[in-house]
Amino acid sequence: MRALRNQWYCAALSKELAGVPLARTFLGEPVVMYRTTDGTAVALEDRCCHRRAPLSKGAIEGDNLRCGYHGLLYAPGGNVIWAPGQDKLPQGARVRRYPLCEKHGWTWIWMGDPALADPNTAPAFHWYDAAGWAANGACLPVDANYLLLVDNLMDLSHLAFLHIKTIGASDDTNPELSWERGPDFVRGLRVARNLSPSTRQIAQGDTLKTDSTKIMTFTPPANVVIEINTVEAGKRADDPTNRINRQLVILDSMTPATDSSCYYFWGSCRNFRIDDTKLSEQTFQATVTAFNEDKDMLEAEQRIIDLDPAAPQIDLVGDAGGLQARRIVARLLDEEGGARQAAE
Amino acid sequence: MRALRNQWYCAALSKELAGVPLARTFLGEPVVMYRTTDGTAVALEDRCCHRRAPLSKGAIEGDNLRCGYHGLLYAPGGNVIWAPGQDKLPQGARVRRYPLCEKHGWTWIWMGDPALADPNTAPAFHWYDAAGWAANGACLPVDANYLLLVDNLMDLSHLAFLHIKTIGASDDTNPELSWERGPDFVRGLRVARNLSPSTRQIAQGDTLKTDSTKIMTFTPPANVVIEINTVEAGKRADDPTNRINRQLVILDSMTPATDSSCYYFWGSCRNFRIDDTKLSEQTFQATVTAFNEDKDMLEAEQRIIDLDPAAPQIDLVGDAGGLQARRIVARLLDEEGGARQAAE
Amino acid sequence: MRALRNQWYCAALSKELAGVPLARTFLGEPVVMYRTTDGTAVALEDRCCHRRAPLSKGAIEGDNLRCGYHGLLYAPGGNVIWAPGQDKLPQGARVRRYPLCEKHGWTWIWMGDPALADPNTAPAFHWYDAAGWAANGACLPVDANYLLLVDNLMDLSHLAFLHIKTIGASDDTNPELSWERGPDFVRGLRVARNLSPSTRQIAQGDTLKTDSTKIMTFTPPANVVIEINTVEAGKRADDPTNRINRQLVILDSMTPATDSSCYYFWGSCRNFRIDDTKLSEQTFQATVTAFNEDKDMLEAEQRIIDLDPAAPQIDLVGDAGGLQARRIVARLLDEEGGARQAAE
Repeated sequence: MRALRNQWYCAALSKELAGVPLARTFLGEPVVMYRTTDGTAVALEDRCCHRRAPLSKGAIEGDNLRCGYHGLLYAPGGNVIWAPGQDKLPQGARVRRYPLCEKHGWTWIWMGDPALADPNTAPAFHWYDAAGWAANGACLPVDANYLLLVDNLMDLSHLAFLHIKTIGASDDTNPELSWERGPDFVRGLRVARNLSPSTRQIAQGDTLKTDSTKIMTFTPPANVVIEINTVEAGKRADDPTNRINRQLVILDSMTPATDSSCYYFWGSCRNFRIDDTKLSEQTFQATVTAFNEDKDMLEAEQRIIDLDPAAPQIDLVGDAGGLQARRIVARLLDEEGGARQAAE
Repeated sequence: MRALRNQWYCAALSKELAGVPLARTFLGEPVVMYRTTDGTAVALEDRCCHRRAPLSKGAIEGDNLRCGYHGLLYAPGGNVIWAPGQDKLPQGARVRRYPLCEKHGWTWIWMGDPALADPNTAPAFHWYDAAGWAANGACLPVDANYLLLVDNLMDLSHLAFLHIKTIGASDDTNPELSWERGPDFVRGLRVARNLSPSTRQIAQGDTLKTDSTKIMTFTPPANVVIEINTVEAGKRADDPTNRINRQLVILDSMTPATDSSCYYFWGSCRNFRIDDTKLSEQTFQATVTAFNEDKDMLEAEQRIIDLDPAAPQIDLVGDAGGLQARRIVARLLDEEGGARQAAE
Repeated sequence: MRALRNQWYCAALSKELAGVPLARTFLGEPVVMYRTTDGTAVALEDRCCHRRAPLSKGAIEGDNLRCGYHGLLYAPGGNVIWAPGQDKLPQGARVRRYPLCEKHGWTWIWMGDPALADPNTAPAFHWYDAAGWAANGACLPVDANYLLLVDNLMDLSHLAFLHIKTIGASDDTNPELSWERGPDFVRGLRVARNLSPSTRQIAQGDTLKTDSTKIMTFTPPANVVIEINTVEAGKRADDPTNRINRQLVILDSMTPATDSSCYYFWGSCRNFRIDDTKLSEQTFQATVTAFNEDKDMLEAEQRIIDLDPAAPQIDLVGDAGGLQARRIVARLLDEEGGARQAAE
């Protein structure tokens, strides 16, 4: 499949990785992940070099991964250290090891040239484990192209419709919208005033009208951070009579599995009532419910696209961010293609 | 897919259309249908012009259809009348509207050039809502090419075998058969005498032997009307000692969804005991059961065809009608192809 | 699909064939099998010559097979002897009959040129019905290429890993291995000493260590016979103090359905405690369980192969037999191709 390779993609929330193999498909390649005894996360090609069985059907033994078919034992480096019936191992008795990088509870994988993998360039979703913040997240597999999720997250005009029964405000249809573009990012500022409470807010007893400022930042390959500041309608955050002052950050990272499927990793972070475990649980469940509304719609969209991939579409003002994100990805794809040709 | 386009295809039984969106795929295109407040049936392209979400996942608002993703509002004409965040709508903010025509409880759609859509040419299945007749019908999706159903309906020799446990008479294997051919129709006359009662007739207490006259009329693109007259064996309808005098009309119309799937719309109309609601219910259920026997066999036939589409087949005398129907469709396809070239 | 055609493939265990149609797909072709009144096994093309319905949805009438759609009646030779509505049958009113050969409870089919089908060359799995032996077997459909099963059966190093919870001994990882090659066979001798009892043996109360000699013989197109001799560890079979003396023969034959699916026919034969019906039942169930472990792994292997069919693989010493088997098949495929060209 065509996707940027020399990039850090989200491979897992760190909490998903443990002493059992976890199988995922990234950019069309089978990957198995696990933790060694000292907690180091390891990502290997999930295809035994012997007869191509998925190693994820095997078992972890100490720091190593044993193939469940003929028992080949792989060290965390991807090299075979035991095979049945022979002491001398043949050349090529190894699978690919993918660079991983863990930061702030998110684990990133490098599917491209390992020599280019610089951990400093992996995203830092610092809100996820920052002091003063409560956070949770999950991995949601979606049968749609990953860029449909980028479109979705950069154009929040869908809140008032797709999420009207959950997190959307019915009158959030006419925000002030402005965009900032850089070579490797696009950022939207979306200000909506005097919003009615959403169904979910009402369920939580929040009935005041609010002003909401959202900042959506895309960075390649497919990360979208949404910072949401909410205050009482018509008031400033530092106004002593303002009764609402909330910051919510939604972290999003999409990793292509195939051309028409991806993993949607998300985190939800808040800086208020952070010790309220009941609110934490409510927030997690409400987010799962809302993001499944996205999954359902995007999978339907993908099926309609598959019927006629060449069908035209129009763009609205809200699409500026998503379109710019796609331009950045397209430019980087061209650059990778050019770099590959130059190296050949 | 290759199918006639400038034709009226059945889109729904009119009773299926209401104030909620109904999604179907016709000739490979996604279509959504609903009724406006005055009852007018509307058919639109089921693909939002913005991001290609299926409009059928949205909701009817008065006469209009609201996309469930970003809220674009479509008038029955297919034009967008509201979009989020902007007053001026971009060019092309519309989806295709397909001409519909309702007659006698059946709704027909025109998938081709709208300028050529003449309601006068839509089929009139007048039995379905005629005075003196009781009728019912349904839509049965079938995973087989629509012409396999035409073959099936024009060659009723399968009654004594495929339907032997339901509506077929075991001795209905040697009828008199004759055919009338026109440029745009083919009609078969099938007379079978001294038939034993079918399993279903016995269940209803009908144990007399009968003579049955069936007239099967095909018209393009894929309509088959079967008129069935039944009298007591050896008697004429106007013989005062004749104890059976029934007319049953089976209405059939198939609409391709894809090359290997279609919708089978059927109606069953009778002119006897028309107020007998118990008989109506029995007839409906028995027809559903029998037509599911067809569905099961035709889907199996399609799977065998898919294994080797070039495998040869032989024709029997009963196939004359189906073969002529296929010739008519092929000729009209050629004509449409020629007309398209001439227009280019 | 590409597979040897002028070969005997297993079509069924003879016990599977009776007076009802059995449908299978061999080498991409639909086949229906049944027994005539005198017990003769018949295999016909499972595709009615009239409208390509699968004959297997029909019914046996005496020695003949009636199509369930329009009632065409087929004699065991494949010729139509009755069709609806006409006495004179058209030319070509027949389906292909495939040669079958039954030997020792196994039924073999010839998918190639019938003129070349010599029953003398069909495999003789004589253990399966031999005096002094108890045997049972089954057909297991596997969604993997048939040669993956050949690899599996010729390299028993997987016993200690894939089957560690059932029939494998944990210390069976370093056997003596030798190979004998002929133009149309390859045979492996695998001697493993001082093996701990397997999970299954322990469950049966067998706790002694054993020496195990296994002879794996491949013959084309895809037969593998595994003869297993087990004695008490360190003793000879004829040593009066030897407390274990068992012969087990596993019969295996794989028939391709498609390029990525096959039927795995297996038999398990033993020459000890042959009247112990409880042991027979236990053996059958344990073998079903173990072979489903293979099915599960091979289907996973096939899915990984499908992701990237060109991914490289390494060979280990245990693969010598499977590789030689593949060379034999490849050579015979070349010969069939050459013979076909010469005949053209």
